[in-house]
Amino acid sequence: MPSVSDLPRRLCLGPGPSPVPPRVLAALAHPTVGHLDPAFLALMDDVRAGLRHVFATTNPMTLAVSGTGSAGMEAAIVNLVEPGDRVLVGVNGVFGGRLAEVARRAGAAVTTVDAPWGQPLDREELERAIARHAPHVVAVVHAETSTGVVNPVAGLAEAVRAHDGLLVVDCVTSLAGMAVEVDAWGIDAAYSGTQKCLSCPPGLAPLTLSPRAVARLERRTRPVPSWYLDLTLLRSYWGDERAYHHTAPINMLYALHEALAIVGEEGLAARFERHRAAHDRLTAALDDLGLPFVSAAGHRLPMLNAVAAPAGVDEAAVRRRLLDERGIEIGGGLGAFKGRAWRIGLMGHGATAEAVDAVTGALRDLLA
Amino acid sequence: MPSVSDLPRRLCLGPGPSPVPPRVLAALAHPTVGHLDPAFLALMDDVRAGLRHVFATTNPMTLAVSGTGSAGMEAAIVNLVEPGDRVLVGVNGVFGGRLAEVARRAGAAVTTVDAPWGQPLDREELERAIARHAPHVVAVVHAETSTGVVNPVAGLAEAVRAHDGLLVVDCVTSLAGMAVEVDAWGIDAAYSGTQKCLSCPPGLAPLTLSPRAVARLERRTRPVPSWYLDLTLLRSYWGDERAYHHTAPINMLYALHEALAIVGEEGLAARFERHRAAHDRLTAALDDLGLPFVSAAGHRLPMLNAVAAPAGVDEAAVRRRLLDERGIEIGGGLGAFKGRAWRIGLMGHGATAEAVDAVTGALRDLLA
Repeated sequence: MPSVSDLPRRLCLGPGPSPVPPRVLAALAHPTVGHLDPAFLALMDDVRAGLRHVFATTNPMTLAVSGTGSAGMEAAIVNLVEPGDRVLVGVNGVFGGRLAEVARRAGAAVTTVDAPWGQPLDREELERAIARHAPHVVAVVHAETSTGVVNPVAGLAEAVRAHDGLLVVDCVTSLAGMAVEVDAWGIDAAYSGTQKCLSCPPGLAPLTLSPRAVARLERRTRPVPSWYLDLTLLRSYWGDERAYHHTAPINMLYALHEALAIVGEEGLAARFERHRAAHDRLTAALDDLGLPFVSAAGHRLPMLNAVAAPAGVDEAAVRRRLLDERGIEIGGGLGAFKGRAWRIGLMGHGATAEAVDAVTGALRDLLA
Repeated sequence: MPSVSDLPRRLCLGPGPSPVPPRVLAALAHPTVGHLDPAFLALMDDVRAGLRHVFATTNPMTLAVSGTGSAGMEAAIVNLVEPGDRVLVGVNGVFGGRLAEVARRAGAAVTTVDAPWGQPLDREELERAIARHAPHVVAVVHAETSTGVVNPVAGLAEAVRAHDGLLVVDCVTSLAGMAVEVDAWGIDAAYSGTQKCLSCPPGLAPLTLSPRAVARLERRTRPVPSWYLDLTLLRSYWGDERAYHHTAPINMLYALHEALAIVGEEGLAARFERHRAAHDRLTAALDDLGLPFVSAAGHRLPMLNAVAAPAGVDEAAVRRRLLDERGIEIGGGLGAFKGRAWRIGLMGHGATAEAVDAVTGALRDLLA
């Protein structure tokens, strides 16, 4: 059996995981203490405070779900949806589609508002659909990782609340890389992953619920179908009761603690600007290379750049050479973009001029 | 915000997490690579092979669920149970009760066979109940962490199969610390956690399904209610297709890879014997201290020792002093044992004479 230490070093510039700073790796490897150890519980409180900061919220129910970003998605949906509820989902990529699927499995009557891959959802179309269906829950992906497009979230809450609905937003790729304003935007549930702009290994799903969402949770007529993700139980562990629910992924929480400390030291505004600057540098370099974006201008994410592979080029072979010869990982296309797009992630610790120059320089060589 | 590096060092002798060897912590901190990186996929294959070894199975569907042990429990139940199915659960502690609750939430008609806390389930009573109810699924906890009792699992499959049922076994605390024979015992689904006798941090749930269980899964009439835990999707990632499902907890899998390598080096028989020897040493020392077990003689787990706190002693205060003054963590009682028992875990790297002497020596001082 080969050893973990034999694994090659990679520059992770795909759709996640992003490069993890040495400080975060060091925290990850700190000796494990108990999940009910008072010293660990204090650290969990720090994590909650750090998550409130990046989510821009004062929500008391803010925590990290013990699973990856998709577990955060499932937690948001299964806690807030009961069988028969009307759920409206914006779909313009893989993750909108996943939201719809998770809601269907939770027994919801799902309606979708669709947009072509590479285009943002249309706010007015969403609002018309909300007016028509009066959904219990409206769910939208903020930053669609499969297409590199930002969807219109700010301003949507008014229409959702007019029908007493809840607004659920997937912030997996946007959180800590661009503005996510849970309170100011009236978001009722937001979730993310740790392996994108937080630059922490994957394994936890930051999650926050508004008091309106908590009230909905408390009014449920049936138990949450998932015991593992039941937020009424999880908050007894993360809250003052400290009741044992499951054994938290202790070392992963060490890593998230350190990642949030780094975010705090840099400051959110500076972090967002760094992501924006890396995106601008990449945009200029891709233009030079003659590689067009497949995402619509004016709606592009800074941290996830979906780019057309040149006609006649085997995009998978180029990615494999990037990985094998240069140690650089970028992502391939999913769904409608499969086989014809690359996804270049500039997330967290990877949003630097050096990373941009490394990947565009390598692409220049390989495409010559 | 205090730093993770300020956390105190602890000797973890509670119900988990167990002490994590430095090699496993070092593997955990190896720089993160992508979850679809060929080098990482090869490592996942090693993990599957290592898990088959500890589960004593040839089951193709053997993997690590991206959550803690309770996620493994939920995965086993929600994949194999459909609404209305009859599920029989043995309950003689917290984790049997949890199995019943998870099955109820999955829509099962649940019957329980109960035994008092500290006593094992009665095999004949289980078999009579199986004959009476012809359950689709029989679920039993092998090593009940809340009471320190081993339940009779070997030999149960015959009765279960006589009615075409599936046998689900919780091996969270037993795996890699005592014999778990998935194939020889006819177990159809077994799951565990990483933070017990595997001596890895918490965050993954080893899981294996027999071909019979896979056939049941494939015959489902409704989709698995949990998208995150849907084994028909997870096996496309862990299997030859390598289809993206969710971003695996990459660094946690590094750690599990190393933990399984250590198990392989020691050998299962030697590892079980080490756990048994540590238990025997502890038993002798507790006898010296006049601290009786609360679990029935002849049915005690080697790795989890439930002991009565002396009358008149504030058991929580003793645990707190052990932690604060000696840096040793032991567990308190749960449920029926709350406030009157201690749980001393000798799991994985913690199953040593030195650990036994440390905890019993400290108890001798504190109880003097």
